[in-house]
Amino acid sequence: MHTLSAGIVGASGYAGLELTRLAARHPNLRLTALFSDRWSAESVGSRLPLDGPTAALRYRALGEASQLEADVAFLATPAEVSLELAPKLIARGLRVVDLSGAFRIADRSAYPRWYNFEHTQPELLASARYGLPELAREGLRGAQLVANPGCYATAIALALSPLIKAGLASPDGIAVSAMSGVSGAGRKASEDFSFCELDEDLRAYRIGKHQHVPEIEQTVARFAGACGPMSFVPHLVPIRRGILATCTLRPAQAAEQADAAAALERAYAGERFVRVMAADKVSLKDVARTNRAHLGVAFDSRAKLFVVVSAIDNLLKGAAGQALQALNAAMGWDEALGLDLLGG
Amino acid sequence: MHTLSAGIVGASGYAGLELTRLAARHPNLRLTALFSDRWSAESVGSRLPLDGPTAALRYRALGEASQLEADVAFLATPAEVSLELAPKLIARGLRVVDLSGAFRIADRSAYPRWYNFEHTQPELLASARYGLPELAREGLRGAQLVANPGCYATAIALALSPLIKAGLASPDGIAVSAMSGVSGAGRKASEDFSFCELDEDLRAYRIGKHQHVPEIEQTVARFAGACGPMSFVPHLVPIRRGILATCTLRPAQAAEQADAAAALERAYAGERFVRVMAADKVSLKDVARTNRAHLGVAFDSRAKLFVVVSAIDNLLKGAAGQALQALNAAMGWDEALGLDLLGG
Amino acid sequence: MHTLSAGIVGASGYAGLELTRLAARHPNLRLTALFSDRWSAESVGSRLPLDGPTAALRYRALGEASQLEADVAFLATPAEVSLELAPKLIARGLRVVDLSGAFRIADRSAYPRWYNFEHTQPELLASARYGLPELAREGLRGAQLVANPGCYATAIALALSPLIKAGLASPDGIAVSAMSGVSGAGRKASEDFSFCELDEDLRAYRIGKHQHVPEIEQTVARFAGACGPMSFVPHLVPIRRGILATCTLRPAQAAEQADAAAALERAYAGERFVRVMAADKVSLKDVARTNRAHLGVAFDSRAKLFVVVSAIDNLLKGAAGQALQALNAAMGWDEALGLDLLGG
Amino acid sequence: MHTLSAGIVGASGYAGLELTRLAARHPNLRLTALFSDRWSAESVGSRLPLDGPTAALRYRALGEASQLEADVAFLATPAEVSLELAPKLIARGLRVVDLSGAFRIADRSAYPRWYNFEHTQPELLASARYGLPELAREGLRGAQLVANPGCYATAIALALSPLIKAGLASPDGIAVSAMSGVSGAGRKASEDFSFCELDEDLRAYRIGKHQHVPEIEQTVARFAGACGPMSFVPHLVPIRRGILATCTLRPAQAAEQADAAAALERAYAGERFVRVMAADKVSLKDVARTNRAHLGVAFDSRAKLFVVVSAIDNLLKGAAGQALQALNAAMGWDEALGLDLLGG
Repeated sequence: MHTLSAGIVGASGYAGLELTRLAARHPNLRLTALFSDRWSAESVGSRLPLDGPTAALRYRALGEASQLEADVAFLATPAEVSLELAPKLIARGLRVVDLSGAFRIADRSAYPRWYNFEHTQPELLASARYGLPELAREGLRGAQLVANPGCYATAIALALSPLIKAGLASPDGIAVSAMSGVSGAGRKASEDFSFCELDEDLRAYRIGKHQHVPEIEQTVARFAGACGPMSFVPHLVPIRRGILATCTLRPAQAAEQADAAAALERAYAGERFVRVMAADKVSLKDVARTNRAHLGVAFDSRAKLFVVVSAIDNLLKGAAGQALQALNAAMGWDEALGLDLLGG
Repeated sequence: MHTLSAGIVGASGYAGLELTRLAARHPNLRLTALFSDRWSAESVGSRLPLDGPTAALRYRALGEASQLEADVAFLATPAEVSLELAPKLIARGLRVVDLSGAFRIADRSAYPRWYNFEHTQPELLASARYGLPELAREGLRGAQLVANPGCYATAIALALSPLIKAGLASPDGIAVSAMSGVSGAGRKASEDFSFCELDEDLRAYRIGKHQHVPEIEQTVARFAGACGPMSFVPHLVPIRRGILATCTLRPAQAAEQADAAAALERAYAGERFVRVMAADKVSLKDVARTNRAHLGVAFDSRAKLFVVVSAIDNLLKGAAGQALQALNAAMGWDEALGLDLLGG
Repeated sequence: MHTLSAGIVGASGYAGLELTRLAARHPNLRLTALFSDRWSAESVGSRLPLDGPTAALRYRALGEASQLEADVAFLATPAEVSLELAPKLIARGLRVVDLSGAFRIADRSAYPRWYNFEHTQPELLASARYGLPELAREGLRGAQLVANPGCYATAIALALSPLIKAGLASPDGIAVSAMSGVSGAGRKASEDFSFCELDEDLRAYRIGKHQHVPEIEQTVARFAGACGPMSFVPHLVPIRRGILATCTLRPAQAAEQADAAAALERAYAGERFVRVMAADKVSLKDVARTNRAHLGVAFDSRAKLFVVVSAIDNLLKGAAGQALQALNAAMGWDEALGLDLLGG
Repeated sequence: MHTLSAGIVGASGYAGLELTRLAARHPNLRLTALFSDRWSAESVGSRLPLDGPTAALRYRALGEASQLEADVAFLATPAEVSLELAPKLIARGLRVVDLSGAFRIADRSAYPRWYNFEHTQPELLASARYGLPELAREGLRGAQLVANPGCYATAIALALSPLIKAGLASPDGIAVSAMSGVSGAGRKASEDFSFCELDEDLRAYRIGKHQHVPEIEQTVARFAGACGPMSFVPHLVPIRRGILATCTLRPAQAAEQADAAAALERAYAGERFVRVMAADKVSLKDVARTNRAHLGVAFDSRAKLFVVVSAIDNLLKGAAGQALQALNAAMGWDEALGLDLLGG
């Protein structure tokens, strides 16, 4: 197996940093270029506890990214930047894993409403493969452009799809309440994201308007067969990383907790990165700094609802870890390559 | 106005501490006894930044509480302890404000299931007044026994009742996702509540089984007219104090966000401790260390659900502050007496 | 006693916010104007949990502050702004309490080095009274311009002065290690102060170069008789508010822990806001949201050093609380007026 | 290279957990037994995000540890337990890496004072090798019993030794102020270490009495040539893991910052796990979840003191990581084996 050369664009954002850490240790990858205006000309080793050749690399200006010469490019950039860069890099023969939302939503007409731009690359959009291996493994093999899922979409689609697909829960009337660590908002020089404003605080944001909503619904619909419009309320909580999503679904008539738990177990049997457990055992801490998703389902017999709790590290299974997992799948490698993380 | 003498039983718990702070500054109260086995014989001034006569008081053993001589007793004790103490103190002529769940649920038969004990005081239970002034002001005047609401019940009943009462939302199919600071679990010597276990962690707990569920449903039913079984998923988050509850309700056919916002505004017009605002402006930080509730409603037009967000300080509006507010109401005093808190 | 009208300039910073809270409840003050460009035209009630007339005030642009008509002005502004505003306001007859460093250092020549500006108001500088009542009470009576101490200077001067003044410790060879909450850096839109960068992090900053160094040394020298150049290493820790300073001093030959503890007790006997206790009982939590300083001294018999630990809330005893205390002293009022805070 | 079988005693403590994570991924180790009463009979995979054979191991009762059959035993146990277990395991031919203080202090007579027990194993004590490879590499080769350094001793000895050894700073008059995350106190069911008590709090503890003091002084004396009694004040700060130590030393007459920085650089040139940088760039976050130490020195020209700032992860370079590094050294393996950690 020869190694692939790889570049990371947007390498100083929180997802870009995790990508750098992971790629530097991936046995089949060789980082050759990192792009970040923020740290332009600084060495990687001055920013991350890495040794070896990666440490000596210097960040380059973002504007040079379209000239990247490598086998693979990871784009940890805003959707608008990915939309511009991806076609150029693909035209030059690179495989692209895009961590933004630019190529996630099949329905091009959704972009103006949810992302505030017109999608200018309908063909690329049609060719992109959604990088959630547990639900979409087959499509990934050989993919030239991977649309890496959003963090909320990953946590929630993994939680919802098996129950709906198994006919145990209705695709309609789903309500999701999710909590995200602050790194989900990206690296920002903003009063709103300062320590003093966020520590000891909680709030809901973008209620019913979060740009991940269409992605979540599309993903569940695609892999479970159907998904009605769902209620999605994300909250900002004072932790650095991680997402915990609590999803309520209406059960099909006779479905019970054991059925639902069995469906989850079945859906993820043999999966390296998904663990199913009791819903109140799902804990963010256990998945932090791993590529894992922990899932659990409870049946609220009074309210007659399934409650599925799902936890991931937003920067790993929700971003950089999944990007490598998807690349591994695209290349036909062991999906866990470079992802045996310690957690903690 | 002569001042009332007051005692606090369970004074070293988090709610008991807040009660002590507040009562020490209440113009119409004079703290004369505090009971806590944990700090027995220590002075209040060694535990709290208080001056004056309160600072010189010494904590007494809990076993002496039934002999308390005072006008008012606040019970910040487990429900089983309150169940024993309240009748004794009332028999001796004291007014009792109980912060536990011992006298909150009218349906005595609910106690074995939700609280794990048989209720032995049906007459007292029937006579107790629920201490949520914004919904139950009239009943409180002159009350001998106040059942001070639970923190979750306060946050959620304030959020739900106006929309249901106004006919804008269905009493059925309600789902509530709530987040609580760690002090909600009380003061505990437990690995599970240690800093290392909880910092940077999130989890759901007692899904559909929390003992506040029947109280919440009873309260909404009583003050809004009806309430079906609701889904209630509480979460533990790494903050010290506060509750944020996100409630989803199905709107009546033609109801819109403006209607719901207007119903909230109307319900709490003139209330000193409730503020209505945009749902995504509700922030725990703004109510921390105050007796306030902040509420906001959004309409999710895709999911066709109202989302009401509610924030309180669990130790104040959810416990000690509300206890004083209820006593103020019971005595016919200005409800805000002793409750002009700085927040912060 | 008639009330004084008061204005706050820089009202949206963290110290300005605390000043607003405190002044709004001060029995002898009547807030009539608040200046902040950030929140210009917004109402105070939309930003702080205040009721009554203060809530209805609207923030005004900073540029209007020089026209303030009031009895008292609190300047919670950068030193350069205070340097400009104070003379104008004093010329118009206002009493000024300045929370910046603009008027704290008697030696005018220190400003270029430590504050990066030439001091243009030597006469005002000479007339300013240092607002640390426990050390400088007499000078404050009737003061027209109060230079409110810095937070580090307050914590450290209170800790060091009694031992040196009593001849128990040397004024030379002092080393101070201090930890500050993030609000000490002010309200900033900066990546460096974002939640993700600071949570779970610790670092030292401005080692030996902090602008409070000359103020600390001057204050100790003035009130204890002498102070050599000291080592001062401040650290940034992931908490919102508070300072803990650990000071090491060389004892005079025969001095023991009991002597030092007695000197601290004696120095602050009768002080409302200073408590002396065992050094390892001094805890930030106990002074948070109060105007108190907690102090304790230990004698390290092996290293032959006194260790004095000092804790204050940087925004209260280190800023806004002390400003009110100093105004109370200047007016001849009870120093604790408006400062009976709950903590917590 | 054949792999060694390894057991971990005290596997559910915070250091034991990190050891488990690291050993599970170490290419030359094969975990065969873990001992913990707390989790007895539970599987490792239910507690840690590990796959493969380690995940299937079940924790065994601590009482069985003396029967451990393996090539290596890691003791993450209290000193008293290590003192009992180590001789038994060594007698049965195991190599032992002890993470407690039981074998760290050469002067047996220090144990009663600092550890509250008489040392019953003087011969083993004499034979133990101190496991700080950067200072004591030669002694480690072939060691049968490694006394793994304490976390404070690691951070501080690395900071102090080069300056003293180079004659740039005096071994007398050293003062150290250190801050430790809560995991340093171990896993405890204690009110004092609960989230509510520690979040937003700071305090100093065991001033001048910490049991690491003799170890620090012995280590500096051994590797730098001399060390007088030092002042050591540890503080507890609300973070989960990590130590930041700020050390002040008196410079030899003509020494300057550049000399000191050069001495640090020289001392650790070629070291894989030590980085030297500007003192105010040393940040806990950068070493968290790595086996690294970051060091920096500043010269405070006014106070005429060197200030060395040192940061490590207390559970890795301060415990489990160093234990593996020392084993690697003892075995003659690459010291970094199994320690290429991601950080973050």
